[in-house]
Amino acid sequence: MNVDGKPYRSIWLGADGEQVEIIDQALLPHTFQVVTLRTLSDAARAIREMLVRGAPLIGATAAYGFCLGLRDGAADDDLARIGEELIICRPTAVNLRWAVERMQRILSPLEPGKRMQAAYAEAARICEEDVAVNEAIGSHGLALIEEAWQRRGRSGAVSVLTHCNAGWLATVDWGTALAPIYKAHARGIPVRVWVDETRPRSQGAALTAWELAAAGIEHQLIVDNAGGHLMQHGEVDLCIVGTDRTTASGDVCNKIGTYLKALAARDNSVPFYVALPGSTIDWTMDDGFKIPIEERSGDEVLWVPGRTRSGQVEQVRIAPEATTAVNPAFDVTPAHLVTGLITERGVCEASATGLAGLFPEMV
Amino acid sequence: MNVDGKPYRSIWLGADGEQVEIIDQALLPHTFQVVTLRTLSDAARAIREMLVRGAPLIGATAAYGFCLGLRDGAADDDLARIGEELIICRPTAVNLRWAVERMQRILSPLEPGKRMQAAYAEAARICEEDVAVNEAIGSHGLALIEEAWQRRGRSGAVSVLTHCNAGWLATVDWGTALAPIYKAHARGIPVRVWVDETRPRSQGAALTAWELAAAGIEHQLIVDNAGGHLMQHGEVDLCIVGTDRTTASGDVCNKIGTYLKALAARDNSVPFYVALPGSTIDWTMDDGFKIPIEERSGDEVLWVPGRTRSGQVEQVRIAPEATTAVNPAFDVTPAHLVTGLITERGVCEASATGLAGLFPEMV
Repeated sequence: MNVDGKPYRSIWLGADGEQVEIIDQALLPHTFQVVTLRTLSDAARAIREMLVRGAPLIGATAAYGFCLGLRDGAADDDLARIGEELIICRPTAVNLRWAVERMQRILSPLEPGKRMQAAYAEAARICEEDVAVNEAIGSHGLALIEEAWQRRGRSGAVSVLTHCNAGWLATVDWGTALAPIYKAHARGIPVRVWVDETRPRSQGAALTAWELAAAGIEHQLIVDNAGGHLMQHGEVDLCIVGTDRTTASGDVCNKIGTYLKALAARDNSVPFYVALPGSTIDWTMDDGFKIPIEERSGDEVLWVPGRTRSGQVEQVRIAPEATTAVNPAFDVTPAHLVTGLITERGVCEASATGLAGLFPEMV
Repeated sequence: MNVDGKPYRSIWLGADGEQVEIIDQALLPHTFQVVTLRTLSDAARAIREMLVRGAPLIGATAAYGFCLGLRDGAADDDLARIGEELIICRPTAVNLRWAVERMQRILSPLEPGKRMQAAYAEAARICEEDVAVNEAIGSHGLALIEEAWQRRGRSGAVSVLTHCNAGWLATVDWGTALAPIYKAHARGIPVRVWVDETRPRSQGAALTAWELAAAGIEHQLIVDNAGGHLMQHGEVDLCIVGTDRTTASGDVCNKIGTYLKALAARDNSVPFYVALPGSTIDWTMDDGFKIPIEERSGDEVLWVPGRTRSGQVEQVRIAPEATTAVNPAFDVTPAHLVTGLITERGVCEASATGLAGLFPEMV
């Protein structure tokens, strides 16, 4: 997607064909800085310290990190060593392990001398696959925005509410929930995005708002409390959010607060869509309430990071010393509150039947 | 209520019987500082700069400010002068005008030489009336917490979720939504409070958490996104919130985000109560969606105040420079989502019939 008119991905191969470049997302939204990864340690640090985040982008960074690691040796032992060094960075990230195992599976049968070139080819393939999946999600979601534009009689702008960041920064390009918005903007449909702040980590304020500002798409930041009121007053045409895991029955586990917006959407007859790559469907699970919910540190609630008026990035505490906080990171939106799931294969009902129709090979 | 074991009100007469003392709420939760009001200008500044806030407390401060103003003259002209200087501080505050007009009505018929003493008596009466109303709300609400305690089989703790600050700091004492919690705590019923942060002004984190910490009541701060998830998992026994205005039909206008919690409470069969003095019922209005909603500055969304690690109170910006924000301050929860209204006369259904039963003289 564009940053100040120049197209970017969230990760790309350097001009020398060896080094890898990323955007340091920990500095956003206050500083846009490209960082060069020259070694396996550079890649591991980028994942561990969250210069890159978002499951697909973590996978892509691990794949390229694997390439960089091969420069110190490409024997069978090296394949194991590199994999271990990467997987330990964020042990619970599913895409990290997936990417490492895919690289090992592709490279082990080859002679060591041929592994480096094959690794770069495979890392590029992982990236291209992610881009293609997200672009397809964008095209299917675009049709829903076009419908909303028709319902408005093609006047004003289509107002889309989104929660958290499911944009291109979380993937290699396009994003999931934001892909339809980028497509609509490119198509000339006027869109206006309500960006939920998404406390406690404020990915909406820090990342989604930054993406949309960089792309020149009209948007307004709102507190997480405001979406229901806006829906009551007809200010939201549709909601599109991402998801971390979707069950085979269509229950959606996504960033904390998604469920409240889905309730408000249902109460006000606002369509509520969830955009997802098929790879995030958990076919082994048919009840969202069985998904374990990560409890993160209360410090994320008690301390808010930002830029002071003098330009420094600092954290400020918003509560008394004696107060502690509880911080569940995700919630589950039951399938019956979801209008539809937007996948790379099309849009379906959030149900076992709907998903089985699009992914018959999985059931 | 208690602060570090010592009982306080939010406003009180000094030991000399003339000066007035308040807590500088603009410094909370980071500093607890008592400020002495010696002149009318002191009182006006306290209201204007929000050292005091909350409709009942603003009214009480205006009443005592009136007393301080009489020290410079108590003629008829002075009554008008003092009133004007106070009302201009926050022109839209209903209780401010109400208190000023009440003082003028009581004092005008008296000889100037008798006005000062009568003024202090009336200011004290305004405070005592507020305390009595809130304590009665507390007693009626206590019965609901006791019921929840019985439903739990008197085990664990009753978990109450609240939004914004409707505590003693917003009134002269007790508060509205928090009064039942203070009563339950005093009665020995174990209570645990989920404190919604309440973005954008974070009154939950800054004021409700501070009140509960000072009173030694178990509480946890949560982001506004988390309440629905906690209700889904049985972690909330009941919700109690305050209200800025309630219609004759029982619709509740309260701090932005209240509606989302009411939806989640309904979806999870959690009782949702609203605590209010009868004086905040708007008997002229029977549709909450006709209440005009204040739109406040987007800067409240974009900038978050707090205390840095080095101890300074600063604001940090959480979004890119190019991003603007929309900031509706209140929302309306329709009566059908409200389990009951807790008033000084008892608990009633949130409906025209329910309210008419408790306030027959008003209909």
